[in-house]
Amino acid sequence: MKFCSNCGSGQITLQIPPGDNRERFVCPACQTIHYQNPNIVAGCLPVWEDKVLLCRRAIEPAHGLWNVPSGYLENGESVADGARREVWEEAAARVKIDYLISLYNLPKINQIYLQFVGELVDGAFGVGEESLETALFTEADIPWKEMAFTSSVFTLKRYFEDRRTGVKRLHRADYPAV
Amino acid sequence: MKFCSNCGSGQITLQIPPGDNRERFVCPACQTIHYQNPNIVAGCLPVWEDKVLLCRRAIEPAHGLWNVPSGYLENGESVADGARREVWEEAAARVKIDYLISLYNLPKINQIYLQFVGELVDGAFGVGEESLETALFTEADIPWKEMAFTSSVFTLKRYFEDRRTGVKRLHRADYPAV
Repeated sequence: MKFCSNCGSGQITLQIPPGDNRERFVCPACQTIHYQNPNIVAGCLPVWEDKVLLCRRAIEPAHGLWNVPSGYLENGESVADGARREVWEEAAARVKIDYLISLYNLPKINQIYLQFVGELVDGAFGVGEESLETALFTEADIPWKEMAFTSSVFTLKRYFEDRRTGVKRLHRADYPAV
Repeated sequence: MKFCSNCGSGQITLQIPPGDNRERFVCPACQTIHYQNPNIVAGCLPVWEDKVLLCRRAIEPAHGLWNVPSGYLENGESVADGARREVWEEAAARVKIDYLISLYNLPKINQIYLQFVGELVDGAFGVGEESLETALFTEADIPWKEMAFTSSVFTLKRYFEDRRTGVKRLHRADYPAV
């Protein structure tokens, strides 16, 4: 942050405000404190019969690699809203949310992944603008070596385990766990 | 947002960037897109024997009302890190995180609450700077009419239900559900 978004001053400083215990960007001209906080990445693993739907990314980072449909949660959305939207945008598919399967922390890059499992409505899907292709995979066919992010590997592994045990539950981990 | 935090231009406009589908604050001078996204509020309900620890807020909003220790997740933290820090800051207590009990969405104010249940280490607690007082309550003694936020009422109700059923699980809801 170089300029104050409230008053335009170029004198922004990094300091600990009174009553706080962390350095913040503070504007000495108008006293605004500019907080910066982690972002939520919301996603959903769409399931259809014994298969799961993955998307091959048409955008950076990880262009060309496979992923569980996910993206930044937007203002005005619940986490489930965001997950459903991402499935629509990346795979032109509608899902019925089943359960939250993973809370995956990437504190070094200030991202918190929250991924659900959901059922594909009618089994229909397409290819969204942010995807090169989309496809249903059985567990044996998952392209493990061409996955975009550890968060998605974590979610996929936990999903297949949950399916074997019959227990649908939330799993928590920090990067780089898979 | 009135000024660009990157170049200081006062010509910030609200527009849909190419390839996007939402209005963003965009700087026509340096092309920076200023994304705004929801914040995570991380918290933990500390448990000791048959009681839970609540804090009476010394800060606005909801000054003077009771709450489950919670606050904005900071950059560099996992959600559990943030929850433990909030318990320390508000109640001078250490907790051993047990499970994530609630995901509570407030989409109109761009907040997502993630609250855990945790056990008080050694049963010790004090009064943090942001609290007027802290106290252990049995279920019968919870000050339901003096609670600060619906998110905490939701978490408390689910906690006592979970304790009765013996099933520790994540509950999801949107404001104003309790």
